[in-house]
Amino acid sequence: MPQGEEKISGNLIYRGRILNLRVDSVKLPDGGRAMREVVEHAPAVGVVSEAENGDLFLVRQFRYPAGEFLLEIPAGIVEPGEKAAETAARELQEEIGFIPGELNEVTRFYTSPGFSNELIILFHARDLAHSPRECDGDEFMDVVRLSRDQLKDLAESGEIRDSKTLTAIYWYLSR
Amino acid sequence: MPQGEEKISGNLIYRGRILNLRVDSVKLPDGGRAMREVVEHAPAVGVVSEAENGDLFLVRQFRYPAGEFLLEIPAGIVEPGEKAAETAARELQEEIGFIPGELNEVTRFYTSPGFSNELIILFHARDLAHSPRECDGDEFMDVVRLSRDQLKDLAESGEIRDSKTLTAIYWYLSR
Repeated sequence: MPQGEEKISGNLIYRGRILNLRVDSVKLPDGGRAMREVVEHAPAVGVVSEAENGDLFLVRQFRYPAGEFLLEIPAGIVEPGEKAAETAARELQEEIGFIPGELNEVTRFYTSPGFSNELIILFHARDLAHSPRECDGDEFMDVVRLSRDQLKDLAESGEIRDSKTLTAIYWYLSR
Repeated sequence: MPQGEEKISGNLIYRGRILNLRVDSVKLPDGGRAMREVVEHAPAVGVVSEAENGDLFLVRQFRYPAGEFLLEIPAGIVEPGEKAAETAARELQEEIGFIPGELNEVTRFYTSPGFSNELIILFHARDLAHSPRECDGDEFMDVVRLSRDQLKDLAESGEIRDSKTLTAIYWYLSR
């Protein structure tokens, strides 16, 4: 079994609202030293939200760090005390106005393992029942319903520019 | 056209080796205010590296922020003055010991647009010619060659836990 990297010391640079920044000194497998910048971020969920005819619901919102509007699957941070499946159901209601009758975990993945521990837990929601949409105060988003053909075109043309959403769409189309 | 968010003021919290952290105050579409935490990160490349029989080359390395070993496509940060295609070719040589005869951009995507501007430019490399492997001093990784069936199994079983790599594999299998 190969060796990993061991933490020698850590320095908390910033404690914030959705992230913390830490700079650690680590011991490398060959005994050398290195520094590692780590953005701590809570786990988040993303949801493949399937309508009865196989369409998916996506949301379009402005993403300030990217500086542009992005088409994404419904997603959100797992709040303290919440189970990931609860977050998925809550985000569906808040973002697209549905409650899932069936909700299954697909897979989980790191978004940027070179500098962050953010983990996305991907769910597949089906048997969707309408429920009033309730957005967070500082979230402004449009719901977009897309067919399998449209999803394929948008992914291949470069119009989907969010990693978790590309993973979700290609996974969905591969089934 | 919906409105985005406008920067009112910014505060640089940390300037580091692979990332900077900024906290901005922004004006929302409804005139309200919010704060946005932004991790600035240089663009990076990821490379779908195809052998002549359709196998792909992945690398296994310890990812300190994730705290575990991950299987990923070859990848790396675009250095100042470098074109993304040059980074892709350089990383292939450094990480798996090949020079690509053919190199095409597939797509580009943000890894975590909720808190970072990191953009991954995904390439597809073919017609690979051997060339001595040259790793960076603090990189320790193993090269793994996988068939299409193995890639499918690893993606579906949850053993691939890196977002760009899942996107890359599902894209590759969809072709």
